Amino acid sequence: MISTDKTPSRSNNLRRSYGFDEISLTPGLQTVDPSLCDVSFQLGPHKLSTPILASAMDSVVSPQAAAKMGKEGVLGVLNLQGLWTRYEDAENKLQEIISAPDSDFVTLMQKLYSQPVRDDLIQRRIAEIKNSGVLVGVSSVPQDAERLESLISEAGADYLFVQSTVTSTKHISQQPSLDLEKLCKKSKLSILVGNCVSYEVALQLMETGVDGVLVGIGPGAACTSRGVLGVGVPMATAIMDCSEARDYFESKTGKKVAIIADGGIVVSGDICKSLASGADAVMIGSPFARANEAPGKGFHWGMATPSPVLPRGTRIKVGSVGTYKEIINGPARLDNGFHNMIGAIKTSMGTLGAQNIREMQQVEVLIAPSILTEGKVYQQAQKLGMGSR
Amino acid sequence: MISTDKTPSRSNNLRRSYGFDEISLTPGLQTVDPSLCDVSFQLGPHKLSTPILASAMDSVVSPQAAAKMGKEGVLGVLNLQGLWTRYEDAENKLQEIISAPDSDFVTLMQKLYSQPVRDDLIQRRIAEIKNSGVLVGVSSVPQDAERLESLISEAGADYLFVQSTVTSTKHISQQPSLDLEKLCKKSKLSILVGNCVSYEVALQLMETGVDGVLVGIGPGAACTSRGVLGVGVPMATAIMDCSEARDYFESKTGKKVAIIADGGIVVSGDICKSLASGADAVMIGSPFARANEAPGKGFHWGMATPSPVLPRGTRIKVGSVGTYKEIINGPARLDNGFHNMIGAIKTSMGTLGAQNIREMQQVEVLIAPSILTEGKVYQQAQKLGMGSR
Amino acid sequence: MISTDKTPSRSNNLRRSYGFDEISLTPGLQTVDPSLCDVSFQLGPHKLSTPILASAMDSVVSPQAAAKMGKEGVLGVLNLQGLWTRYEDAENKLQEIISAPDSDFVTLMQKLYSQPVRDDLIQRRIAEIKNSGVLVGVSSVPQDAERLESLISEAGADYLFVQSTVTSTKHISQQPSLDLEKLCKKSKLSILVGNCVSYEVALQLMETGVDGVLVGIGPGAACTSRGVLGVGVPMATAIMDCSEARDYFESKTGKKVAIIADGGIVVSGDICKSLASGADAVMIGSPFARANEAPGKGFHWGMATPSPVLPRGTRIKVGSVGTYKEIINGPARLDNGFHNMIGAIKTSMGTLGAQNIREMQQVEVLIAPSILTEGKVYQQAQKLGMGSR
Amino acid sequence: MISTDKTPSRSNNLRRSYGFDEISLTPGLQTVDPSLCDVSFQLGPHKLSTPILASAMDSVVSPQAAAKMGKEGVLGVLNLQGLWTRYEDAENKLQEIISAPDSDFVTLMQKLYSQPVRDDLIQRRIAEIKNSGVLVGVSSVPQDAERLESLISEAGADYLFVQSTVTSTKHISQQPSLDLEKLCKKSKLSILVGNCVSYEVALQLMETGVDGVLVGIGPGAACTSRGVLGVGVPMATAIMDCSEARDYFESKTGKKVAIIADGGIVVSGDICKSLASGADAVMIGSPFARANEAPGKGFHWGMATPSPVLPRGTRIKVGSVGTYKEIINGPARLDNGFHNMIGAIKTSMGTLGAQNIREMQQVEVLIAPSILTEGKVYQQAQKLGMGSR
Repeated sequence: MISTDKTPSRSNNLRRSYGFDEISLTPGLQTVDPSLCDVSFQLGPHKLSTPILASAMDSVVSPQAAAKMGKEGVLGVLNLQGLWTRYEDAENKLQEIISAPDSDFVTLMQKLYSQPVRDDLIQRRIAEIKNSGVLVGVSSVPQDAERLESLISEAGADYLFVQSTVTSTKHISQQPSLDLEKLCKKSKLSILVGNCVSYEVALQLMETGVDGVLVGIGPGAACTSRGVLGVGVPMATAIMDCSEARDYFESKTGKKVAIIADGGIVVSGDICKSLASGADAVMIGSPFARANEAPGKGFHWGMATPSPVLPRGTRIKVGSVGTYKEIINGPARLDNGFHNMIGAIKTSMGTLGAQNIREMQQVEVLIAPSILTEGKVYQQAQKLGMGSR
Repeated sequence: MISTDKTPSRSNNLRRSYGFDEISLTPGLQTVDPSLCDVSFQLGPHKLSTPILASAMDSVVSPQAAAKMGKEGVLGVLNLQGLWTRYEDAENKLQEIISAPDSDFVTLMQKLYSQPVRDDLIQRRIAEIKNSGVLVGVSSVPQDAERLESLISEAGADYLFVQSTVTSTKHISQQPSLDLEKLCKKSKLSILVGNCVSYEVALQLMETGVDGVLVGIGPGAACTSRGVLGVGVPMATAIMDCSEARDYFESKTGKKVAIIADGGIVVSGDICKSLASGADAVMIGSPFARANEAPGKGFHWGMATPSPVLPRGTRIKVGSVGTYKEIINGPARLDNGFHNMIGAIKTSMGTLGAQNIREMQQVEVLIAPSILTEGKVYQQAQKLGMGSR
Repeated sequence: MISTDKTPSRSNNLRRSYGFDEISLTPGLQTVDPSLCDVSFQLGPHKLSTPILASAMDSVVSPQAAAKMGKEGVLGVLNLQGLWTRYEDAENKLQEIISAPDSDFVTLMQKLYSQPVRDDLIQRRIAEIKNSGVLVGVSSVPQDAERLESLISEAGADYLFVQSTVTSTKHISQQPSLDLEKLCKKSKLSILVGNCVSYEVALQLMETGVDGVLVGIGPGAACTSRGVLGVGVPMATAIMDCSEARDYFESKTGKKVAIIADGGIVVSGDICKSLASGADAVMIGSPFARANEAPGKGFHWGMATPSPVLPRGTRIKVGSVGTYKEIINGPARLDNGFHNMIGAIKTSMGTLGAQNIREMQQVEVLIAPSILTEGKVYQQAQKLGMGSR
Repeated sequence: MISTDKTPSRSNNLRRSYGFDEISLTPGLQTVDPSLCDVSFQLGPHKLSTPILASAMDSVVSPQAAAKMGKEGVLGVLNLQGLWTRYEDAENKLQEIISAPDSDFVTLMQKLYSQPVRDDLIQRRIAEIKNSGVLVGVSSVPQDAERLESLISEAGADYLFVQSTVTSTKHISQQPSLDLEKLCKKSKLSILVGNCVSYEVALQLMETGVDGVLVGIGPGAACTSRGVLGVGVPMATAIMDCSEARDYFESKTGKKVAIIADGGIVVSGDICKSLASGADAVMIGSPFARANEAPGKGFHWGMATPSPVLPRGTRIKVGSVGTYKEIINGPARLDNGFHNMIGAIKTSMGTLGAQNIREMQQVEVLIAPSILTEGKVYQQAQKLGMGSR
């Protein structure tokens, strides 16, 4: 018999990760009047007045929506592989998606997104946003990024987000991979890349010359990656790790790359937690899908859904709860974290004693029981006749 | 490429915090006959017969309610920025709030609380309580505390609670901040301050000369701070930390400042847990909103709700379950922790072998699965045909 | 300002405790044919054929029920402060309790249990059990134990369980306390005592000369101690701690005292977990309240409910699922752990490689996700169209 | 009094174990085009094109189902103690089980499985599968394995799975135990054995000469072992431990034995997690019971149910969601992890940067909040009007 004094160890040494629902922010030694709190942040060549971007999803950003959100200080990023660059009458296609019964949704998505993307429509959509007087951000999958760069640049875009579900600097494929370093060097656009979740990958992406890195894999509203692929990293851990890479990179090179938390953000408290975990800004989808003016008209769906072989993501009814102005800058009519996100961020910063986002990134984060679980517990308590807490 | 042997560490070093539902008290080597257990505590110049205060919320404390609760040994604290000091006919305004449909609630609150506070009403309300023969506690926001102090003092109040959601000794603002030390020195009132959650801030607040510190941010029944701001500290941890500051302060100065747990207390077991975590007393809202005589008439709402730009807190139907006498001193008709709080505290102390509150603060606290979760599990078990446990 | 380099530590050093739902048993290097597994255990002077006792609760043990369960190898303990020793027509009183509407239940209980206990009824009930040819166990509160001892002994009882919610060897009271050591010395009854949850108290109780110690505070089906008093210790931890005291006591004195897990046991798997945690036997209530022949006729309630000032415990509908024979010795018709408890224990022991209870006490216990939580997750999965697991 | 400086320690040193819902996979430094990912694995003498086997359960594998799944690359294992080897008209018996009301299910199962197994039917069923041109796997309980081996071998089977709920190399019984080492030596079949969950037992089983070890006790869809017996080990921990035994065994002997995760796998993400935890392949039941062509016709039940004395396992309605082709190789119409399992595994591997299963076994596994819990939280959030995440 084989003798062994070895004992199994792998499952005893797994790393614990944390999501938004598991953390809470704790006040420090000082407080600040919220009106003195500065929420602006630097994204490449421009200083943006709010640390909020809108996700490149068809239910969230249309050219018109980007214009309107831009007026409120939010950079709405248009998906260049979405409906608006495939169809003249994208609005009709949106309506089809919204009206489809559940059973037909995946098949319809697969059909609609099989239509090719048109260069002329890309240029037209960028112009539509540009003409409204706001900054223009667009998003492309890596395989088309190099080909589209000059087209986008000429059309007047400011930011190019090179996005795939999971990004690395080493992609093994028979197709040639995007050379991100070359793209950053040659382009006059400000280039951002994502998504990633780890310290090492974030650091490698920063070395290519990008101005920002999107952080978040698997936690989003309309994403089923964890069920289908088993893949996903809870947001608080992912943001903390990538933010440490940013700090390290800045200490070595002097360049500050923006860390943008992307995915799983539902209420204003989640934005505050993202910043406190180290993010410079957030990219959010469902909170804006819930705007009266949103392209999804009360519905929201993921961009991985159209996959012809492995659809992931689902369509969710999110409802319409208020105008962009109410959602972004208030005043709030709702008390649940859906309205006045900037007011909430400033009040949170004041409460926590942070005068700007850099200080907000230093506040203490605790592991604490989930507020939504508490919500459930509260409902349970009510049923048991125990009333409220 | 930048080489790095650094690994991310922040998310591996977060502190774990605990709420009431996660702890349980465990008996020690002795037991005590509950009739021998002393639940009184010293609050500034007076010895109070019970370690329970009623929260300065309009749904909980009216002048009449303060008088009635005072007879049962509970100090009811009147909110000086509430309806009673803004309106002659506060009862009518309460009725409006109770009758409003959900959709109008936040807007109505914002309207009602925009009416200015009147000095004459402050004096009249204090007199109404005073005349009933009980101790008088009132609560003010910090910005009005200095101005109101002499008015309150002359009207005959005993305690002034200077309260804001989050208190620190260093507030950065363009308005002049309250000088708490000066206020404590000059006033003949017993002054308490809050809310805070950390060892350091509790210690700094004690150094200003206050007689008590309120502990608790974000955990209350009618509070949505965690969803909106991401801010909040589970109560067991907050109480333990601030109580250690009290003990340290006493060891250095000889003065014993009262630690008052404020927020998140639903049932009598939560009061017992607060004391065992180190509190000298508790301030509770929803359990008294549930009294037959409560001003909220079966409803309860938070005092952050009227904020014109960022309402937090919500209105909850809590129902009416018994008289003040039944709730405070029993005998109990209900077996769920709503009735006979003093009886429950004494029985818990007897079970745990504590003869007074100081001894109760020393009993062993365990981390244990949530009782409400167990409740859910039990209900689940019943549905699965597994019956009771 | 007071300088301090002290940091708060109490909340960082709380002990984690575990309940049945959080542990699971893991097979070792051998397996055993279940038919070879011995489930008997020594309780004072007698060897009992099964490690299961029935709780001294009116919904669980009547004289008749004790006789019937005794035939199946289960020692049913009669409560001497229950209905059977207060009323000639106890059956009618049971019917009243069962028929009462929820709103009247606590008041009715308080009334029924205010009737005094009669010595003649105690003797008659013991005789009724004795005449059926089984061992007789009775339970008394400590304050009556000394007075009743000779009465009980003469009537022919074998075991006296001296029980209170929380037992210690040092009880501070103005009434004289029971001298357990004296009682054990003078009585010819086999005496057991409880309930306790800690190593130290278990050890002290063993030193008084008892034959068994009941372990468990707060986890039972019909007990609301945690909500009302904040008190309770999860069972796996309590059993492990007290069992270590038994082993230590045996190593010092050579006497083996029985550790009996009492409370929170719902299904046969919980009995297996109790034994694997170190118990010699279990005392269970709700599983027998669910018998067709049970005095509670499908209902179950706690014995702390009649408290005139602080009722704890509640009445639960548990239903009737089978005969005593099916529940205890099978064969099982149900597959959920309600039937054939002895068969389940033997199969579990065989699976885990334990040939007797002493070996069962050594098997490895893991911390593992709750099976009931998994049940919920499964139901959730089904709703989400994810089917079964 | 006995003095003691010993403190109880057992409950402070319990090992934490993890299930699928508690882990998540995290991307590394590279990504791979899914089309380049190789999912084949070596099982004894044959290389199988997919790492998926179908469980030896009557609701999952019939001779016809084995043939159809084989065409898609899945080895369907026929239970030799199931209905197909007891009845000519097994289809009718399946229909009886499916049609039985809940209350009769256990009794019916006990009756149907009391009919003896027929050697001629074993041979006929193996031939039916063989004739379809796919590999043939059959499963037997240990007590019949030696007797059936030559019969099975002659009939043309390729794999013999010797399966019992819990397997060890040392079984204490009055009946002679199976000598697995002798069986492996004499048989020309490829022999696999299970189930086990620990490093030591897996290692001992490998030393008998088997080609594969099945890992998993208690976590399956139709299994109630934890409730009835208290026994069960969460899958991620069990797979990690047994996989470490495989690696150790290979390092000592050069022979690579397959670790097959068996139980608790619901969605494609669970398969990915199994591989990442170290498994070479998985054996799944409920996902195939959900096929349009499945013998259970939308129902699924466990094979421990027929036990005459202690039935465990239950019948679950799982529904029919698609063809074997859709479930195994896609394309997917559903986005929830039920369709295109091979596509999901390849996409997961690509995302995680693994080009083959051996590399997949090395990816980082995190402890992360349960996705199903998140699902619940999401539903909760929706009810609270908080929309999606």
